[in-house]
Amino acid sequence: MKALVIGATGSIGGVVAATLETRGHQVIRASRSGDERVDVTDPSSIRELFARIGRLDAVVVAVGSVPFRPLGDLSRDDYLAAFTGKTLAQLDVVREALPVVSDGGSITLTSGVLAREPVATGAAAAMANGALESFVLTAAAEAPRGIRINAVSPDVLANSPGYFDSFPGHRPVTDEEVGRAYVRAVEGVITGRVLAV
Amino acid sequence: MKALVIGATGSIGGVVAATLETRGHQVIRASRSGDERVDVTDPSSIRELFARIGRLDAVVVAVGSVPFRPLGDLSRDDYLAAFTGKTLAQLDVVREALPVVSDGGSITLTSGVLAREPVATGAAAAMANGALESFVLTAAAEAPRGIRINAVSPDVLANSPGYFDSFPGHRPVTDEEVGRAYVRAVEGVITGRVLAV
Repeated sequence: MKALVIGATGSIGGVVAATLETRGHQVIRASRSGDERVDVTDPSSIRELFARIGRLDAVVVAVGSVPFRPLGDLSRDDYLAAFTGKTLAQLDVVREALPVVSDGGSITLTSGVLAREPVATGAAAAMANGALESFVLTAAAEAPRGIRINAVSPDVLANSPGYFDSFPGHRPVTDEEVGRAYVRAVEGVITGRVLAV
Repeated sequence: MKALVIGATGSIGGVVAATLETRGHQVIRASRSGDERVDVTDPSSIRELFARIGRLDAVVVAVGSVPFRPLGDLSRDDYLAAFTGKTLAQLDVVREALPVVSDGGSITLTSGVLAREPVATGAAAAMANGALESFVLTAAAEAPRGIRINAVSPDVLANSPGYFDSFPGHRPVTDEEVGRAYVRAVEGVITGRVLAV
């Protein structure tokens, strides 16, 4: 399978790219700084990426920066930044990916545990993740040519110990667990699913 | 209880205002065209509304316009309009409401069934609703002075038959059912909950 991983230098995207390669897939790694450059906050940059690459069997997008602040400190601009930086960036990828993904191929988004579990300072991130998770339900039902659309929603990552203190009592999820969820979304038959890891 | 209903001329807000009045509460009806004017897409208009009214025991917000289009036709601007028109408008109300709601008072948002069930052309609406539903989980956990934050998420409304064809097989929910959910959120002790109706 020919797979594009957007956000391939990140702590999730790197795991996904390595996992899919181990499974024998051809992986194209796109990121702000890698071989295939893309700025996911710029729709024209996303469009150019897909125009360069052409036909794909799988697109995985693991990007999104959101502000973390106490509820009372979150401004209108913070919510807008969370939406454009995580939600809208991934929706823009879906729109550009749909015409180039092969019949029965897949698009896999990345949300996160805050969609379902609160942690301090996470209200804007929760909002951005919840938006993605509800989106995939309808988007999958409407996708053309059997294209499957899912989201993977990981808990705090074992490979990112700097975040452990922000998620007290959460069990950090290993690279293997994260990789498996994306393999299910890419190689499996599921669609319209949110895979909590 | 002194309650503010924003969107009081709408098909949900009207029911909520009438229901809360029947329960003996003092209800202030705000809307784009009523006695208490507010434009929820304008943060300064929201700020002025709360400055005029002062202390409140309950705030209910039932507003939000979102574009409905097939997945392939939804543009970046459509997603932005759905976010600003429904999600951000309600988050702006939360921010302005928090300082004026009394200890243990409540803020109740309005999402909708599309957060959990797909219908054709509803991907942007699903996204806007999912954002609100995940937001309340964290916002409630962080709210000061025991202020409770919930969302009511109604299915297609019995009082809006024009939408029945867009929700095939859905059971339209009556005004009484909708009103009850808001009464639970306003008079009850729950917080961080999404009340599906």
